[in-house]
Amino acid sequence: MKFDNLLEQMKDRMPLKRLEHTKGVATTAIRLAQKYGENPEHAEVAGILHDVVKFADKEWLKQMIISAHLDPLLLAFHPELWHGPVGSIVAQKEFLIEDKDILHAIRFHTTGRAGMSNLEKIIYISDMIEPSRKFPGIEFLREKAEIDLEEAMISCLTHSITFLIEKKQPVFPDSFHCYNDLMQKRGKVKE
Amino acid sequence: MKFDNLLEQMKDRMPLKRLEHTKGVATTAIRLAQKYGENPEHAEVAGILHDVVKFADKEWLKQMIISAHLDPLLLAFHPELWHGPVGSIVAQKEFLIEDKDILHAIRFHTTGRAGMSNLEKIIYISDMIEPSRKFPGIEFLREKAEIDLEEAMISCLTHSITFLIEKKQPVFPDSFHCYNDLMQKRGKVKE
Repeated sequence: MKFDNLLEQMKDRMPLKRLEHTKGVATTAIRLAQKYGENPEHAEVAGILHDVVKFADKEWLKQMIISAHLDPLLLAFHPELWHGPVGSIVAQKEFLIEDKDILHAIRFHTTGRAGMSNLEKIIYISDMIEPSRKFPGIEFLREKAEIDLEEAMISCLTHSITFLIEKKQPVFPDSFHCYNDLMQKRGKVKE
Repeated sequence: MKFDNLLEQMKDRMPLKRLEHTKGVATTAIRLAQKYGENPEHAEVAGILHDVVKFADKEWLKQMIISAHLDPLLLAFHPELWHGPVGSIVAQKEFLIEDKDILHAIRFHTTGRAGMSNLEKIIYISDMIEPSRKFPGIEFLREKAEIDLEEAMISCLTHSITFLIEKKQPVFPDSFHCYNDLMQKRGKVKE
């Protein structure tokens, strides 16, 4: 890892298990970036920082959403969705990340969005498939990630959406827009 | 059926099989309206007219969407979604239906929407479960419709959305908004 110092700084922000996850995301993201022709250093930084405020106080996250003028709709949804957008603000202000692609990769790593860049897809996918993750169907997602970035993104996103629908949980609109965007680009609209 | 004359007028607009479906939707909708305290005549009229332009020419439907200022996003989605919104315009202009609830029930019978009325739910559900319909899982939906209108709507809608996702087809945003609306009203957002 090139950014060991950055990873070190995550120790105070999350429990050890989540730190292992963070390291796993960064490692997976570096590998996918190399495979798909993206900047591996950007992938590493986004991977390390993606959960930077995952364990922050919910009330503080809420205030950050308001003060940073993030999408106010977030507040009507599950707090689990707040750490991505707020994390991108913290990455910019505290860790002085200027690259917009890295910031977007952090911001949308839980929901996805329409028009994701390759780096955003890499972080979204890495977050789901990094080595410490375990859930039924993960091997299929890992295999997809080795073959085709776009198809892997579709598989990971539909896995997430159907998981939420099966649990009868709301789905944040960005995820739906992401799904439709991917499907329409795939040219599956049959006349 | 009280509106036999209206049903008769559908004969020129659809093949016999679809006429049977139309009759089935109207009959089911009347029964559900009686069960859930809604106006059975409104249910019958909406049921008979819901597919009034199902077999209309696609180019004409497209022009109607444009000239009636219906949601232009429809044109970027599957033409199957066009006959509901255009049907509501035809119901109003040609069949002189003035009741907004009936018109909305026709308009949103394929996609659903956030904030559906009971009549809209009744038509959406009746369209899926009327006696001539056959697909895996329909008996579960029919049972739900006898017990709870809201739960039946959730089951029918999630069936439709997951069917589309499994087929990797886009899902019209109204359906997603409908889903989130139903889920949020159900109070399943866990803090």
